Amino acid sequence: MENKSYLVQMNGNGVHGKTTVNGKSLNGSGVNGKGVHANGIHHVSVNGSLYPAKAKSRRQKWEVKPSEMAKNTLNPIRSIVDGMKLTPNPDKPMIALSIGDPTVFGNLPTDNAVLQAMKDAIDSQKFNGYAPSVGYLKSRKAVANFYSCPEAPLEAEDVILASGCSQAIDLAISVLCNPGDNILVPCPGFSLYKTLAVSMGIEVKLYNLLPEKSWEIDLQHMESLIDERTSCMIITNPSNPCGSVFNKEHLQKILKVASKHCVPILADEIYNDMVFQGCSPSLASLSSDVPVLSCGGLAKRWLVPGWRMGWILIHDRNEIFGSQIRQGLVKLTQRILGACSIVQGALDSILNNTPQSFYNHTLSFLKSNSEICFNELSTIPGLNPIMPSGAMYLMVGIHMDHFPDFKNDVDFTERLVTEQSVFCLPATAFEYPNYFRIVVTVPEVMMVEACGRIREFCQRHYRPLSHDSNDLDQ
Amino acid sequence: MENKSYLVQMNGNGVHGKTTVNGKSLNGSGVNGKGVHANGIHHVSVNGSLYPAKAKSRRQKWEVKPSEMAKNTLNPIRSIVDGMKLTPNPDKPMIALSIGDPTVFGNLPTDNAVLQAMKDAIDSQKFNGYAPSVGYLKSRKAVANFYSCPEAPLEAEDVILASGCSQAIDLAISVLCNPGDNILVPCPGFSLYKTLAVSMGIEVKLYNLLPEKSWEIDLQHMESLIDERTSCMIITNPSNPCGSVFNKEHLQKILKVASKHCVPILADEIYNDMVFQGCSPSLASLSSDVPVLSCGGLAKRWLVPGWRMGWILIHDRNEIFGSQIRQGLVKLTQRILGACSIVQGALDSILNNTPQSFYNHTLSFLKSNSEICFNELSTIPGLNPIMPSGAMYLMVGIHMDHFPDFKNDVDFTERLVTEQSVFCLPATAFEYPNYFRIVVTVPEVMMVEACGRIREFCQRHYRPLSHDSNDLDQ
Ligand SMILES: Cc1ncc(COP(=O)(O)O)c(C=O)c1O
Ligand SMILES: Cc1ncc(COP(=O)(O)O)c(C=O)c1O
Repeated sequence: MENKSYLVQMNGNGVHGKTTVNGKSLNGSGVNGKGVHANGIHHVSVNGSLYPAKAKSRRQKWEVKPSEMAKNTLNPIRSIVDGMKLTPNPDKPMIALSIGDPTVFGNLPTDNAVLQAMKDAIDSQKFNGYAPSVGYLKSRKAVANFYSCPEAPLEAEDVILASGCSQAIDLAISVLCNPGDNILVPCPGFSLYKTLAVSMGIEVKLYNLLPEKSWEIDLQHMESLIDERTSCMIITNPSNPCGSVFNKEHLQKILKVASKHCVPILADEIYNDMVFQGCSPSLASLSSDVPVLSCGGLAKRWLVPGWRMGWILIHDRNEIFGSQIRQGLVKLTQRILGACSIVQGALDSILNNTPQSFYNHTLSFLKSNSEICFNELSTIPGLNPIMPSGAMYLMVGIHMDHFPDFKNDVDFTERLVTEQSVFCLPATAFEYPNYFRIVVTVPEVMMVEACGRIREFCQRHYRPLSHDSNDLDQ
Repeated sequence: MENKSYLVQMNGNGVHGKTTVNGKSLNGSGVNGKGVHANGIHHVSVNGSLYPAKAKSRRQKWEVKPSEMAKNTLNPIRSIVDGMKLTPNPDKPMIALSIGDPTVFGNLPTDNAVLQAMKDAIDSQKFNGYAPSVGYLKSRKAVANFYSCPEAPLEAEDVILASGCSQAIDLAISVLCNPGDNILVPCPGFSLYKTLAVSMGIEVKLYNLLPEKSWEIDLQHMESLIDERTSCMIITNPSNPCGSVFNKEHLQKILKVASKHCVPILADEIYNDMVFQGCSPSLASLSSDVPVLSCGGLAKRWLVPGWRMGWILIHDRNEIFGSQIRQGLVKLTQRILGACSIVQGALDSILNNTPQSFYNHTLSFLKSNSEICFNELSTIPGLNPIMPSGAMYLMVGIHMDHFPDFKNDVDFTERLVTEQSVFCLPATAFEYPNYFRIVVTVPEVMMVEACGRIREFCQRHYRPLSHDSNDLDQ
């Protein structure tokens, strides 16, 4: 302290300290102008305290509370599943048809080319450093090439890599929406949209999917929800939890609604190309005006969800997003850097060297398992399975009137565990009561066994409807 | 549409649709109660539109603007560097002393044990699926064991894995702070704190570090900034950009301030153990009451920043964080899942099998390069380098009065590129004008060459101060 003298001068920018340190004079650095300024006090002091304690209201005791955002980050799957009493029947081994992770049973390993690409990336030692926040140029180019088509061309600059499709969705919502805005979200739908939106103070409006029309969107309903604060509509195609795939005409109608009301689309196309028959065009490839942020990743098609490699494809036909949304996305990627550099380094090779036979095998397995499941459950009185056309899920309606033993889908699936050691996710987790979701990635024998047990369970609890019982309902 | 009839009934929970689909009756599912309810309209309709177009204000033309959050995500390093004219002298090869990535020159490769751990994790095929949102238990246990000490014991449940230290910091700020709160941040300091906080509407109050006291905190200044909305103080030790390391006594004084005003600490200890001499205790190991979230990761010490593996160590002596903050953190990890499962799978082995010689080699290299740089720059009139004690940085004060050719540090470093092809980051990027930061990870020959060029540059532009020139200053 002895050797210090402060010389504080005012200038246009506030207060600047001129400090002498070890006989050398430094300008405006030793004492930081901002700090003094922030305090709102201008001091000239040679010795003693530069910052006398002002009478301030401060905490007198410890009280550390989680933020509103933390409190508002709600995971419906967790809160529903955690609230269930899941005690399997000790006489039957547990079969979980609930887990949206295709790797858990070991029957669907990723391709060797994918693993080799990772090992090559590690051996090269070229991918240990920081990648640009939007991803390596070469990796972005690889994604652009992979998804580019004449109707929806893509360059590297249209691709932003992220930590999983989840972060891609987070970035897309974050760049398009302000607190107080609303977004349109499918019902039933993937719960993350709501989790993210609500935690950011964005309102969620659920639009209905129609089970009787293979889960097509109730477009009138969707349109009726749009107002001037609707900042994007989320379209999931193919769908989790429905396994549905929209045809070209339906996609065009969706685009028409978006176009009419000038609402950009967040297309969650993580299950893109996971279609049992033919193919489903991407939304962007059918759009002539509507700007689309398409979110995807390696998780599902390449069967490596843990690797956290996702991306946003920016489709902007008429410069409606323009440079502002692009720059907004770039800025947001700088908050936390995205995907692991090793996976990024392997991406080009993963996309280009994975053999077609790998994709084909996955799809034919999923299709065959879906058919087994659908055919079995179709013949069970009281259930209404809806045949999927893609992705890895199948929704089953429960005619609750026929199951008076149970209050709802949560109750139904809980008891299915207690009695039969089969766990399916109650669709209340997707805001869609009285359905449950089956994941069709389990080995075939397990699927067959599970369906048998579900049949046994339903047969035991099914009650035919009579006019009498109908009256009792009232 | 033909086959559908709607029967809408009121009940306590709002509106529920009873739909008949394909002759089967489903309760409350075909038409989603929420959707209708959200609209605020109750309809009974057998045919035709269920959702008549209400007169609503909607967008008539395209107008998609980036969110406030995107606009408020500011990266000072980018905005300053992007604003600089960085045209190197064509006669001299460029030397970048600006990049905080130790891998760029290839002279500091990570250890083979680290690479082998990754390849083993890939070969095992056990780490391709989703990890729990907070990380695999085994990996968290490994981190807990690695950092546990008698004064600050850690269990797996005290560890949360994240996508780099950046996400760890993001999670920590997110759980502790609400918009309108303020946090205390070191000046000069790592710019990410402000980037994250401002994007979330959290006020940043900069507390001064004192260069003449080896960058210790001006504790009086720090204390003067605290008010009842101060929701955490960030302490970076060892420091980027200063390379400083606090001694035990100073850390204890910091804890005393935190304790007195009941402010929890976010300790950014990513450079923990990167200390040239002796060791610096972690903040938590000295705390008897102050709750500490310590953020760290593999990036620096293991020289793999691109891999995005970070963590939070929860130190909560007196249950002040309690289960609420822990649960808040868990919830926040569910927004986007964190670190790549392969790196998580390798973590145990990375922490346990990396030989001590690897760490020692890195440190002795950084120390020796720091000394070369410090000794060279110390003898250059007009510069005031501050010798670091850890991390990988060295700050150099510029006596601007002696360099009338330049307005400030940005100008100075820009011209250093033009004339000498040496780029150092102007410390304005750390809110600390008239300093620049040197990264000491470059190969020794480059460091020597760069120092020679800085000397040439300074000699050319240095003007001795006379009383005359002092007068002219006014
Ligand atoms: C529709 C949908 N979108 C996004 C995701 C998240 O993908 P990722 O694991 O890459 O974050 C999932 C995961 O199940 C999903 O089903
Ligand atoms: C002080 C400090 N904290 C955090 C980080 C971010 O670390 P990561 O790359 O693991 O996100 C850095 C990176 O430079 C840093 O210097």
